Amino acid sequence: MKFELTILGSNSALPTSKRFPTAQVLNVLERFFLIDCGEGTQIQLKRFKIPMSRINHIFISHMHGDHIFGLIGLLSTFSLQGRKNELHIYGHSKLEKLIRFQLELLESKVEYTLIFHNIFGKEIQTLFEDETLTVQSFPLKHGVMPCAGFLFKEKDRPRTLKADMLAFYNVPIKNRNGIKMGEDFVLEDGEVIANAKLTMDPPKSRSYAFCTDTAYFPRIVPIIKGVDLLYHEATFLKSEEKRAKKTYHSTAEQAAKIALEAKVGQLLIGHFSARFKDLKGHLNEASEIFPKTMLAEDGKKFSVELDRD
Amino acid sequence: MKFELTILGSNSALPTSKRFPTAQVLNVLERFFLIDCGEGTQIQLKRFKIPMSRINHIFISHMHGDHIFGLIGLLSTFSLQGRKNELHIYGHSKLEKLIRFQLELLESKVEYTLIFHNIFGKEIQTLFEDETLTVQSFPLKHGVMPCAGFLFKEKDRPRTLKADMLAFYNVPIKNRNGIKMGEDFVLEDGEVIANAKLTMDPPKSRSYAFCTDTAYFPRIVPIIKGVDLLYHEATFLKSEEKRAKKTYHSTAEQAAKIALEAKVGQLLIGHFSARFKDLKGHLNEASEIFPKTMLAEDGKKFSVELDRD
Repeated sequence: MKFELTILGSNSALPTSKRFPTAQVLNVLERFFLIDCGEGTQIQLKRFKIPMSRINHIFISHMHGDHIFGLIGLLSTFSLQGRKNELHIYGHSKLEKLIRFQLELLESKVEYTLIFHNIFGKEIQTLFEDETLTVQSFPLKHGVMPCAGFLFKEKDRPRTLKADMLAFYNVPIKNRNGIKMGEDFVLEDGEVIANAKLTMDPPKSRSYAFCTDTAYFPRIVPIIKGVDLLYHEATFLKSEEKRAKKTYHSTAEQAAKIALEAKVGQLLIGHFSARFKDLKGHLNEASEIFPKTMLAEDGKKFSVELDRD
Repeated sequence: MKFELTILGSNSALPTSKRFPTAQVLNVLERFFLIDCGEGTQIQLKRFKIPMSRINHIFISHMHGDHIFGLIGLLSTFSLQGRKNELHIYGHSKLEKLIRFQLELLESKVEYTLIFHNIFGKEIQTLFEDETLTVQSFPLKHGVMPCAGFLFKEKDRPRTLKADMLAFYNVPIKNRNGIKMGEDFVLEDGEVIANAKLTMDPPKSRSYAFCTDTAYFPRIVPIIKGVDLLYHEATFLKSEEKRAKKTYHSTAEQAAKIALEAKVGQLLIGHFSARFKDLKGHLNEASEIFPKTMLAEDGKKFSVELDRD
């Protein structure tokens, strides 16, 4: 029952030899959602043993090179691997132009179906929805560049059946789905067994929000309220707050403020400027405001466990 | 007096976590010539501490993704680093289209001058020439895809002065350049001192040939004859010779045959299929025919030393 994020790249525009540009993959029940695709993403997918054939959805936040330059290589590799599954790509309308132009110029045969979905970037938009999960985009603040955050949210689960009680009342299998949905059970003699006797609350649905690149932008707080895990960029330290503002990036402190205001479970900071070899400064600065802060580092995994409280 | 090749990527189309796609850099007297630019090249340049600001010439063999997908990211990084130097890129005419389209679509400001040079690929062509070095391209055989090999050749050096003999005959500084070029020296009393007394043969000029991607193609032998170091692709083993032929690649044995026929100094094989985790098979197969064979591995350096024999 996984809900696990793997960091493929944690750096900002200039990659270092240890930190690749932005890319992450979220494993929700063994479906892998790729988020951003900086140069080298396919290499990191191999390094960290992510099953590439299970990636059917790619979400691209914005059209800066450090978030997209790995996409054409990944699409080509899918082709060489004989991929047949449809691939859905969610991003700015320019992204489709960029990819289609390259495929055509290079005469690359892509045998699978590529489906581009346009993110308008001006409001909350549902990009993906199935029985268990929804993915929405929402606008961030990155200058004139339209830039989207992404919110991954499990749907509410049906109630959990109490196996011993079902056995005790001899509940037939045909009734179980209804009981999961909250129905009571009526015995042959007419006695009503309340649903609360037969079931317990289901595990809480889990959620993840991805916010990069962005200046300090409190308008996102209601959207990401209470998520279990928040990734928020922290390109700079507080000492460079002016530079952060000018370049539409955030400081570690600002990331922590957003986490605090949104009452999230845990904060993960990343998109570090290449100048920082040591990231303790970022961790300390954010942790002072929001103690449950962690550093995004290439290859690290962050799980949200199922919770029955 | 370096003439040193660094392998940045040694794999064929599908990169592995240990072998990046094709890219190399040749250091000739502290000028760095980049050859091919697969995805992740900029990361490898950082990892192996190549001074990026000294790269002013990039040679691209052909328009397959595993040889070019790192170029747009590298050009963007040059921009972010504030590069001002002209950058010369040698490749197929489509390469300029590919790069210009991306820069325009992404509204990337490139403050330095980008100069594209078209490789026609049908004959030997001198791409670069200065006082010490020439770089030529020549056609390889890679199906319908025009594909160029590159030949880097130091020019002949002037003769080496014998310092002790110059002091003995009290040769003025103004005469020395002429003597380096082979002139005799005439003493005040009219006696002629033969050049051979005053100088010795210069070190041999050094050379490197880069041959990938290509089927077995003996027509290149006269072009690369006697080079000190030959890089030749060896995507497959002899057991897959049919597949090599079909995909216009070479086996390790074929690479060695070319090296033997061309009487090169040393052979370096690379562009390995991702299926091979262990490359001993390639090394053994080639070494049987051409003993001075080495494996290209990411990060390895191969020097051609100055030779006075």
